[in-house]
Amino acid sequence: MKFKDYSDEVLLAQLGDRFTVTYRFAVDEHTALEMARSVCVEQTVEFPAQHIEADAINQHIIGRMEHFGACWDGYRAVISYSDQAGTDEFTQLFNVIFGNSSLLPGITVERIDLSREQLGWFRGPKFGVPGLRERLGVRGRALAFTALKPMGLPTASLADEAYRCALGGVDLIKDDHGLMNQPFSEFEDRVRAVCAAVRRGNEESGHNTCYIPNLSGSFEKIMDRVRLAEDCGAGGIMLAPGLVGYDTMRYVSAHTGLPVVAHPAMAGCLLDKGSGGFACGCVLGQLPRICGADLTVFPNYGGRFSLSQAQCRSIVDFCAEPMGDVPPIFPCPAGGMTFEKIPAMREFYGADVGFLMGGGLFTVTPDLSANCERFVRILRE
Amino acid sequence: MKFKDYSDEVLLAQLGDRFTVTYRFAVDEHTALEMARSVCVEQTVEFPAQHIEADAINQHIIGRMEHFGACWDGYRAVISYSDQAGTDEFTQLFNVIFGNSSLLPGITVERIDLSREQLGWFRGPKFGVPGLRERLGVRGRALAFTALKPMGLPTASLADEAYRCALGGVDLIKDDHGLMNQPFSEFEDRVRAVCAAVRRGNEESGHNTCYIPNLSGSFEKIMDRVRLAEDCGAGGIMLAPGLVGYDTMRYVSAHTGLPVVAHPAMAGCLLDKGSGGFACGCVLGQLPRICGADLTVFPNYGGRFSLSQAQCRSIVDFCAEPMGDVPPIFPCPAGGMTFEKIPAMREFYGADVGFLMGGGLFTVTPDLSANCERFVRILRE
Repeated sequence: MKFKDYSDEVLLAQLGDRFTVTYRFAVDEHTALEMARSVCVEQTVEFPAQHIEADAINQHIIGRMEHFGACWDGYRAVISYSDQAGTDEFTQLFNVIFGNSSLLPGITVERIDLSREQLGWFRGPKFGVPGLRERLGVRGRALAFTALKPMGLPTASLADEAYRCALGGVDLIKDDHGLMNQPFSEFEDRVRAVCAAVRRGNEESGHNTCYIPNLSGSFEKIMDRVRLAEDCGAGGIMLAPGLVGYDTMRYVSAHTGLPVVAHPAMAGCLLDKGSGGFACGCVLGQLPRICGADLTVFPNYGGRFSLSQAQCRSIVDFCAEPMGDVPPIFPCPAGGMTFEKIPAMREFYGADVGFLMGGGLFTVTPDLSANCERFVRILRE
Repeated sequence: MKFKDYSDEVLLAQLGDRFTVTYRFAVDEHTALEMARSVCVEQTVEFPAQHIEADAINQHIIGRMEHFGACWDGYRAVISYSDQAGTDEFTQLFNVIFGNSSLLPGITVERIDLSREQLGWFRGPKFGVPGLRERLGVRGRALAFTALKPMGLPTASLADEAYRCALGGVDLIKDDHGLMNQPFSEFEDRVRAVCAAVRRGNEESGHNTCYIPNLSGSFEKIMDRVRLAEDCGAGGIMLAPGLVGYDTMRYVSAHTGLPVVAHPAMAGCLLDKGSGGFACGCVLGQLPRICGADLTVFPNYGGRFSLSQAQCRSIVDFCAEPMGDVPPIFPCPAGGMTFEKIPAMREFYGADVGFLMGGGLFTVTPDLSANCERFVRILRE
């Protein structure tokens, strides 16, 4: 098929750099090669290539297989795309990476390698590890991180919890991600009350505890809530990109002076749990980092979720691997954390990590402030 | 653990109705029951229930198992939650349905049954099948739907395609979902040019073809693009909720007078492909309908994607099942559609469907207008 008014020369002048995506296919070699070739088309033109009478589209718009080979768990293809196919809008980049192919079983996105041009468009978080350490005044140790719980409490109870955590000196307190705008604890009341409680706790204790409200609500309310959090003196904001969209997090991160925590709620849908999706490090490390998170929460190995040590390691690696000027970010393992586990965790994760302890911190003794002090003391040791 | 300032009575007065989610667990009975109990906690309080000294939280906030039993492919649990746990914000409802549990393998969300109260909050699409038929003036037959392709063409070529499709009288022409704001066809240019081309085609042919641009771009640009599409006379807008977020689609649908098409790009991540997720009809039928889509595009069985007839049937069922005042919506099978397949498709899908034919329509003969005429003629027969 020929196209009216199409010119190879005009298109060639508009293509920019190329970026690559590494896919794994958990099938036999013949099928894997066929699937990889189909990804090149499916993620771009969605049109039978033999019918496209336009050389520059066939050679430069359709994904280009740069490498194909066996790996221990299937076959791996590195496919490059024109930056301009993905554009400078994250949703469209996301679409080129895995849009239609997400509907097929057996394809895993292992990693994304952005081009230099794209790293000018997608700048990642504002703080990252060095900026957040500077801001918090915490050096050489892991961050002590907790969450206000459980859903159903009134704002006064949650503010009391936060006050006691600030007395105990944890670094970060977030809303449990299920706290949104329930009638029993409305967002605005909670943010005002908890910010005030944390300020009072800090004044009394001399600590620098930060409160991070959950902003994973309606499209039209997110930016007003960011402004409220800023005005009330919150120390950061939390978004679940699986709920609000990765691009929403990117936008918010670029339009607030506060650090951003990515929560994994619903991001489990993107996670390859055996039938395809994004590899663990990619969805819980790389994507939040590209989209402006300073910290990324994920289920720790050995807890009540099912990630392996290797998967948690890959998240840590993606949080820290070189990526142009994008700073490393804090991996924050969570879920079933207890004091007893911390030494092993510290050995595994090193110092550039936030340990998120919720239920374990609240229940180990009835004295929440003392529990928080102990938490920080163990991390200092 | 006791909570300061907490009162059962105050919480009980704030709980509202309850809604239910049906989960399937592809494991043995003992494990399934344990997982179902854990979902009740994980989706709400995320706190060890035995430590919560608050009866109303334990009895009404924690999910309540209304039914548990065997089904042919595992075990099924119907769990109810307080409407006010999910609130009137879709992101939080979405979170209660599957937020944390999405990280676990082997759990499938089969369906959501909204309460009467929630159906007042989430009102679905503005048109649905009856409203869109009225608007298009098409009765008693399937809609003829096509897409402008391929990525890499300049706007003039795409406008020429649209003009010829309008001459041939297809009902709906959408942007290929990979067309966004590439330098070779910028969004604003394309919307202006294609709207004008379709208008000219309609004037010459007497048809009522509608153009539906793709709005799956950046958070901050979506509403400006909606206004541009409205101003230029577009006949609808398309969003991929998997890319922009389901709540973004809900918001846009509620804030435009145009019909909304849901595209499945990246929604494949939510689709249960064997290791958990949302059942096909739920993610490609029910969620788009709740979030305001008038039409939902999905990969047809027998095409280059892998949905089964049963999965496609479940999408159709979810598009049409009674749901308060929410109208039924058009299922739009796509992918590998040809003229030869239409009779069988029509038998399978009935009349309240949109057949989305892309490559097949463009390549069957070089005369695109004639191909479109033939498409509509076959649907009329």
